[in-house]
Amino acid sequence: MKKGGHLPSFTLAYETWGKLNPDRSNAVLILSGLSPNAHAASNEKDPSPGWWETMIGPGAPIDTNRFHVIGLNSLGSCKGSTGPASANPETGKPYRLDFPDLCVEDIANSAHMLVTHLGIEQLCTMVGPSMGGMSALAYLQQNPQGARHFLTISSSSNSAPFSIAIRSLQRELIVSDPAWNEGNYDDKHWPVKGMRMARKLGMLSYRSAEEWRTRFGRRKQDYFPTEIFGMNYEVESYLEAAARRFVRSFDPCSYLYLSRAMDWFDIADGYADLPSALAEISLNTACVIGVETDVLFPAYQQKEIADALETWRDNAMASGHPAAVRISSNFSSLYGPQLAGNVTARSSGGSPSSRVTCSTTAWRTSVISDSAE
Amino acid sequence: MKKGGHLPSFTLAYETWGKLNPDRSNAVLILSGLSPNAHAASNEKDPSPGWWETMIGPGAPIDTNRFHVIGLNSLGSCKGSTGPASANPETGKPYRLDFPDLCVEDIANSAHMLVTHLGIEQLCTMVGPSMGGMSALAYLQQNPQGARHFLTISSSSNSAPFSIAIRSLQRELIVSDPAWNEGNYDDKHWPVKGMRMARKLGMLSYRSAEEWRTRFGRRKQDYFPTEIFGMNYEVESYLEAAARRFVRSFDPCSYLYLSRAMDWFDIADGYADLPSALAEISLNTACVIGVETDVLFPAYQQKEIADALETWRDNAMASGHPAAVRISSNFSSLYGPQLAGNVTARSSGGSPSSRVTCSTTAWRTSVISDSAE
Repeated sequence: MKKGGHLPSFTLAYETWGKLNPDRSNAVLILSGLSPNAHAASNEKDPSPGWWETMIGPGAPIDTNRFHVIGLNSLGSCKGSTGPASANPETGKPYRLDFPDLCVEDIANSAHMLVTHLGIEQLCTMVGPSMGGMSALAYLQQNPQGARHFLTISSSSNSAPFSIAIRSLQRELIVSDPAWNEGNYDDKHWPVKGMRMARKLGMLSYRSAEEWRTRFGRRKQDYFPTEIFGMNYEVESYLEAAARRFVRSFDPCSYLYLSRAMDWFDIADGYADLPSALAEISLNTACVIGVETDVLFPAYQQKEIADALETWRDNAMASGHPAAVRISSNFSSLYGPQLAGNVTARSSGGSPSSRVTCSTTAWRTSVISDSAE
Repeated sequence: MKKGGHLPSFTLAYETWGKLNPDRSNAVLILSGLSPNAHAASNEKDPSPGWWETMIGPGAPIDTNRFHVIGLNSLGSCKGSTGPASANPETGKPYRLDFPDLCVEDIANSAHMLVTHLGIEQLCTMVGPSMGGMSALAYLQQNPQGARHFLTISSSSNSAPFSIAIRSLQRELIVSDPAWNEGNYDDKHWPVKGMRMARKLGMLSYRSAEEWRTRFGRRKQDYFPTEIFGMNYEVESYLEAAARRFVRSFDPCSYLYLSRAMDWFDIADGYADLPSALAEISLNTACVIGVETDVLFPAYQQKEIADALETWRDNAMASGHPAAVRISSNFSSLYGPQLAGNVTARSSGGSPSSRVTCSTTAWRTSVISDSAE
């Protein structure tokens, strides 16, 4: 692993939709953000809706009539893939803090091992939202011919100081909970408060103040008992309810490892600059999408990736690669039906007034499909 | 008090600069934000620099050659005025949670009692940044002829849901610290972690992501020992150092009371709308200043106050009051020397590119001074 650690063995949880074609050229790999599992959409084995349900399916933007779609739960997560919550084969107990230091590059490397294991030499399209976009960039850096098309949404080539500060404070909240106990928590002694407050802080950073205003105003709440210094307003009960749902659904140690991996990530480490870091990557098309009001993965970071890939295009063209990179940053919103009538929300806050520069058509035809080549 | 409580007696800490003129018409009252004390600038009794040092003095924007300036520490604070940290005369011990529920309106009412006590019938100018602007609005609502001029900076007529969410989480951080102990902390058992993390969250909300980027980038830190899940980057050590300075300098209970008072504040409570709530206020001039990137006291809230006062102006003119309200929202920044060459920072984050619509000249001549009447 990048920081020198070693896993004797590991499991990756993934789900698939649509058939792999005979020449194994129609695979779409989705590398997810910090918390999602591999269940991006319903399928035969699990008919419950996935976290990107309306995006994936027959006739959907990621059309399972045409593509073999792979949803992967990241290495280090707790949703089926090996992570700090998994049993350490040497002890039979959860790894917790004995899990080796995890980097985004390790997630990328494990994803490539899966793709190779599935007999796929080159992906049709690599898709990465949020942390998944980081993993995708690392994957492509490690495997410059790894995909023909690339779609990244609200991600970054490194962690900006504001996002580091938010995540660092989230981690501090968790490890300051007495029940954290240096990783020795159990079901009865769970860092509930720390996880709950970390989730609230995350939610505050995912959405814009404008959205809160429209959604909640100053309406009072009566869902939870009022506390001496809180729980008066609907915005408070909304955050509390959402945070409570999260607290037990994600392993604290896994959260800490993945969050730290994002802070550490800088794909240009060891390179002169970002264009140099991405220079070897060979893509037919790329699409970079962000939301103008996103504070965790701000629009300027989307532009940095887009600019770097455009630089790559120039280089590539000079050396004869086919290239028709379409770069588009900032689109209306990931919420609701704006994009193709069927993109659902992930997390980044977006105001309805954000500028649209990535059209659905361009994205469908040039990124997801080879037909525009 | 507004919520029905009662203080048998109370003390207010204030400092003054410049001489009160014989007809007591040149007083400028500064109502402060949550954490500042009464020491807004150096003076004979305390030559150390105040929190608004370059703003107040001979020849400064608030010119002590011409004005009698009063800096007040809010009721409920812990910087000399009576608050939850003060001794309860009935028990001799700190009030803590026995302190009555505190509202912004109570702060305003106590400020008016001080002004009356000083023999001042009408202020020349009321100045209120942040929470102080809330107190100032409440003061003027309670005393419609209370001042001839009004300057409010980065404040609001009510707390927006995003600011409620931030403050609610800050309070949750404090009361979740085991050392909080339902208010029974002492010097040896102080909610250090809760206060430290609450301060960090506050600082994250005061400044813009863009400022963090310019200031820190991804520079590593070596000021504090690296921790397993944090303290790698300079932005982290900066926040840690600043938060440590704050932790012992402010009483946790006082912080909770004042923070909650801000959440509760809505000057239009019981009125049809904001213009109605401010309709009785009689001012010669008003100036409303905000910062476009401020998330706690966003620009739209400055505009709401400005619009409401303009409505008042129309009303007032219709009923014959002299009125020349100058409304200006959004100015470059409270940082550095942009405004009159001598305004220093308070808190709200502002990017250098924010639009300037409030000129120094207009402010000096029409707001602080009667000379434009």
